[in-house]
Amino acid sequence: MLIRLRKRTTAAERDSIQSLCNELGLRSRFLDDAREMLELEGDTSAQVRSRFEDCSGVQAILEASDAPEAFAKTAERVGTTVRIGPAEFGGGVASVIAGPCAVEDGDRLLEIARAVQNAGALALRGGAFKPRTSPYSFQGAGTDALGHLARARAETGLGVVTELLDVRHLEAVAEVADAFQIGSRSMSNFALLKEVGQTQTPVLLKRGMAATLREFLLAAEYVLAGGNPHVILCERGIRSFDSVTRNVLDVGGVAYLKQTTHLPVIVDPSHAAGRSDLVPALARAGLAAGADGLLVEVHPNPSEAHSDGAQAISARTLAEVVRDARTILEMDGRRLATPQPELT
Amino acid sequence: MLIRLRKRTTAAERDSIQSLCNELGLRSRFLDDAREMLELEGDTSAQVRSRFEDCSGVQAILEASDAPEAFAKTAERVGTTVRIGPAEFGGGVASVIAGPCAVEDGDRLLEIARAVQNAGALALRGGAFKPRTSPYSFQGAGTDALGHLARARAETGLGVVTELLDVRHLEAVAEVADAFQIGSRSMSNFALLKEVGQTQTPVLLKRGMAATLREFLLAAEYVLAGGNPHVILCERGIRSFDSVTRNVLDVGGVAYLKQTTHLPVIVDPSHAAGRSDLVPALARAGLAAGADGLLVEVHPNPSEAHSDGAQAISARTLAEVVRDARTILEMDGRRLATPQPELT
Amino acid sequence: MLIRLRKRTTAAERDSIQSLCNELGLRSRFLDDAREMLELEGDTSAQVRSRFEDCSGVQAILEASDAPEAFAKTAERVGTTVRIGPAEFGGGVASVIAGPCAVEDGDRLLEIARAVQNAGALALRGGAFKPRTSPYSFQGAGTDALGHLARARAETGLGVVTELLDVRHLEAVAEVADAFQIGSRSMSNFALLKEVGQTQTPVLLKRGMAATLREFLLAAEYVLAGGNPHVILCERGIRSFDSVTRNVLDVGGVAYLKQTTHLPVIVDPSHAAGRSDLVPALARAGLAAGADGLLVEVHPNPSEAHSDGAQAISARTLAEVVRDARTILEMDGRRLATPQPELT
Amino acid sequence: MLIRLRKRTTAAERDSIQSLCNELGLRSRFLDDAREMLELEGDTSAQVRSRFEDCSGVQAILEASDAPEAFAKTAERVGTTVRIGPAEFGGGVASVIAGPCAVEDGDRLLEIARAVQNAGALALRGGAFKPRTSPYSFQGAGTDALGHLARARAETGLGVVTELLDVRHLEAVAEVADAFQIGSRSMSNFALLKEVGQTQTPVLLKRGMAATLREFLLAAEYVLAGGNPHVILCERGIRSFDSVTRNVLDVGGVAYLKQTTHLPVIVDPSHAAGRSDLVPALARAGLAAGADGLLVEVHPNPSEAHSDGAQAISARTLAEVVRDARTILEMDGRRLATPQPELT
Repeated sequence: MLIRLRKRTTAAERDSIQSLCNELGLRSRFLDDAREMLELEGDTSAQVRSRFEDCSGVQAILEASDAPEAFAKTAERVGTTVRIGPAEFGGGVASVIAGPCAVEDGDRLLEIARAVQNAGALALRGGAFKPRTSPYSFQGAGTDALGHLARARAETGLGVVTELLDVRHLEAVAEVADAFQIGSRSMSNFALLKEVGQTQTPVLLKRGMAATLREFLLAAEYVLAGGNPHVILCERGIRSFDSVTRNVLDVGGVAYLKQTTHLPVIVDPSHAAGRSDLVPALARAGLAAGADGLLVEVHPNPSEAHSDGAQAISARTLAEVVRDARTILEMDGRRLATPQPELT
Repeated sequence: MLIRLRKRTTAAERDSIQSLCNELGLRSRFLDDAREMLELEGDTSAQVRSRFEDCSGVQAILEASDAPEAFAKTAERVGTTVRIGPAEFGGGVASVIAGPCAVEDGDRLLEIARAVQNAGALALRGGAFKPRTSPYSFQGAGTDALGHLARARAETGLGVVTELLDVRHLEAVAEVADAFQIGSRSMSNFALLKEVGQTQTPVLLKRGMAATLREFLLAAEYVLAGGNPHVILCERGIRSFDSVTRNVLDVGGVAYLKQTTHLPVIVDPSHAAGRSDLVPALARAGLAAGADGLLVEVHPNPSEAHSDGAQAISARTLAEVVRDARTILEMDGRRLATPQPELT
Repeated sequence: MLIRLRKRTTAAERDSIQSLCNELGLRSRFLDDAREMLELEGDTSAQVRSRFEDCSGVQAILEASDAPEAFAKTAERVGTTVRIGPAEFGGGVASVIAGPCAVEDGDRLLEIARAVQNAGALALRGGAFKPRTSPYSFQGAGTDALGHLARARAETGLGVVTELLDVRHLEAVAEVADAFQIGSRSMSNFALLKEVGQTQTPVLLKRGMAATLREFLLAAEYVLAGGNPHVILCERGIRSFDSVTRNVLDVGGVAYLKQTTHLPVIVDPSHAAGRSDLVPALARAGLAAGADGLLVEVHPNPSEAHSDGAQAISARTLAEVVRDARTILEMDGRRLATPQPELT
Repeated sequence: MLIRLRKRTTAAERDSIQSLCNELGLRSRFLDDAREMLELEGDTSAQVRSRFEDCSGVQAILEASDAPEAFAKTAERVGTTVRIGPAEFGGGVASVIAGPCAVEDGDRLLEIARAVQNAGALALRGGAFKPRTSPYSFQGAGTDALGHLARARAETGLGVVTELLDVRHLEAVAEVADAFQIGSRSMSNFALLKEVGQTQTPVLLKRGMAATLREFLLAAEYVLAGGNPHVILCERGIRSFDSVTRNVLDVGGVAYLKQTTHLPVIVDPSHAAGRSDLVPALARAGLAAGADGLLVEVHPNPSEAHSDGAQAISARTLAEVVRDARTILEMDGRRLATPQPELT
């Protein structure tokens, strides 16, 4: 580990850095006469590095520890596979998760579940607890919606993904969900991340709207460090200055994540676009950049698919997205897991 | 209320909008032949508006409801005053909150509390539970730190502000804190906002790092709607593309908030700058833009104030900031509340 | 055309709006009693709309003119084809432009020109005049470089694209170039846009690093309005807060542009990524989002392709990008124009 | 100078770096066994550094040259004063520049010139050539407007600032202007910067809407390196995600610039806010952050100052801004230059 100290470090700061080295059993030596470049040898794990990052007098950790974070791709950990019911993500396999934004009616949900399954999806998304900007907006049907999801899961066999907003709902959601969705607004809710890290339920972690890729990976590290290895990263667009699309899908981020972590990475083209007409293009772009799957919002009423401004697509459009997904994935030897691969 | 419908609205969408009007007892009529501009009369409160925003087929609410949100400045609610112990914010009065980033040692905390009080602060900040990007970083001294804060409060009389990260800590924190700090990462933790809305403890709500000003105000609305009127908004810089400062202090946002809401607005120059040398300038700028107070990080060890890269300032620099604050506030007839105004 | 006036419009403002209507021969009437919603009928072209946008008292043009801008996709103008030498862009055909960042040595340029041609490119890019952030950085080899480009063009038959920075270089550059590149930093150099609009040389217009998509389209309109219909739009990444990639490739913007304009749209994955390892993924993503071609930086020294941090890829990697491009384009019935399609 | 080489540098890259050292007469030695940290001694001016930044194989210049750029604050160059007619900027003195956005009518301009002079301004701004997003928008009255500016200058004695958009207008503008304004869209028009660097006319250089502070300083360096030392930097807000204000005034950037450069720094609160009601607050904030002056848009028709959405303020509001400016500047021993300081 190589540390650059600040130019005007005080003696007290140097002493406390030295004490920390002693405490951690690290050998240290200055590389230069100005005593600003400090080399450390020994157990320089991520935990150890963090101790130094917190030190007054440290300007930067120039060279990181040898011990990688749990999210890091290594010779041993190349491509982890995470499953959500029958859906499979990572290790050269991709799947599609689809469904309505919010779950309101049980029969309607079952109808849409069957429609997305026919279109090629292997998992169903649907919000029971919804994070809403305004306290007066509909906050989701709650436990009723969980019941509807359980029924749709039982009748279709689809995996179920639903958002977990509050640590106090964890048990109720875990009974129904094959994966917890941690939404963008909760990416830095570390209390929540620690709790889902204590479970073995897969976690679909969405990137915060202005989170750096490193912050995103470290949010995943909270879950992994807790003992839950089943994390899927989801890029859903970052906030920017143009209002034509709701967010900007960071396909370079997807490509970077695929190089950096062994965890599967999917994209949510629906929240990125914020308008249905651009969703298929963003779905294709995400997969072409290396994504291991899609999370797509599908219109709850397929017969009313002409509302061009909303961000949900119809089940019919989803089928086209699935067809293109297959082509793009095959381009580099990957495959799309679908309900009946031999027939679709 | 004036609603613009989408161009290709389906009959089903129009019917469901009509049903909603009936349900809510609103009179509706189309202004145009194309039936895209719909005028509604009746009780068009914020809750009602949200129902329509959720409707498929609605493109935009062109003219908002007459019933303002609880945060809105009106003829009756011009400038609410919120108190944190002896500190006072709003209604033409400003105060300074200062202290270390994290609370580690009781004696050290007491020393810094006395130093910031001498410099002119009326409230003490200090983290017991710290949100950290990495799971391996120091997460705060927790309940030990709460004990130290309680002692510093008892011995100095300063108001105490400390961050609440987890609904399960609410009672423990409430015992010590004169105000809950809700950090940037928690601004959209609506479960947490609802809980503090159930208390009467003042809430210092920080803006999310990429939150729009409306999202920020609506986060405050969560607390107000729960029944807690004691909310202070804190602008702490938004994320941008330059790395010279950690964030960009949005002084235009401060000025806008002061026009839009009756709630007090303060600035955190320390997190905005991310470097101590720019903190005094940002403190002055924030107050000159209209802020009702400051939240400043002060170095826990005043004798080691030469670490130029860290973001904490010394107590001596704080005293200069307080002196300038007084001048700026007096410029438009406001005043700074300080421990001993006649002596400082 | 539907205009929303400001709430507190003065009589003088209303009068001057009325005068403008008279001057332009438009019929106007207020739709509402408050006289804030003004409907205009008559010749409401883009030029006319702009006159109203400039008026004091006008809050917004709610509904645009019927007469579309020249960039707009209409029933008659669906997909314009623009050629750069043998390369073809738009109307279902895509091509690849590749080459070094700056042209330094004639023999080296010829070598790389042949390499990119072998890899499947139909046009050669290379900077003779370079925009550089620092006045002390290498500013390009200027007219010498133009000579090298002319020679490479003559010997290979590739189309040549090179940047035009200064109106005073227009003639010299036009002698050599099959297309002017207008770089990101020049997208709002309207004097330059007007000049190239007076020529019939194709213009490859790059998006400014923080330009909205509408600003981008209106920059193209400057060229089109001057009488030059040969404009290719190039998305090259927008500036954002993360530093992992140099810019964020806005694939949603690409998809939006393809819906909005009949002009061809290409992507520059090299400047977006800023690092060679992510270039192939971004090239694929851009095409999958609908782009009509690529502008790629290729390493001037193919034998030294291991410099992993630089943004140029090797000719060998380019060949792989070309192979994938073909697959993606065929997915929706488009094709890639290449030097020898039957052999490559 | 300390250079970090990339990990997988090729032998050819190392050779070319060595050749460059020889060519420039620099002594070099590797500090480490891995031969990645290279120390150079000799004449390491900014020009030399740029040569290395351009080298393949160089990852970063860890420690910059000893020879500072011309913009840099040094022991010898602390606070340069730049004059625009009677207005003075820097070295502890600030002035106000005010006037209409565009110059249309000569009598009207004279009226506003007198109004802003009475309010305390020492220089007049007004656009003759206007950069406009749309080619169909009003592009300024051109040479007619220059004539009006000349007359207003002659009759009032105010300094005149007007935008230079095109190198071909340089002489005509120079005849009238006491300072060239280089607008945000032209900050990276290096051809234009070089031309004004060849003159001795002061340059008011506005920050690009997404330019980093270093890019901004290097744009100034283009002018300084050409031999023109009279540069004023103008922060006018950066583009961000919220639309409440048009841009975000970067007061931290102002404070950083004042620490980093000896050049005067002013703010443009009008373009930052984009709405007149927030202009006074932003003007105060900019000065409180350290700015050496203001560039303010003033309504051409003082009697119609109620158009609340436009960004221009009335002359009466300007007088209040001037009064507050004086107080803020005196706070740290600076002073405001005004037409008749003893009377205003």
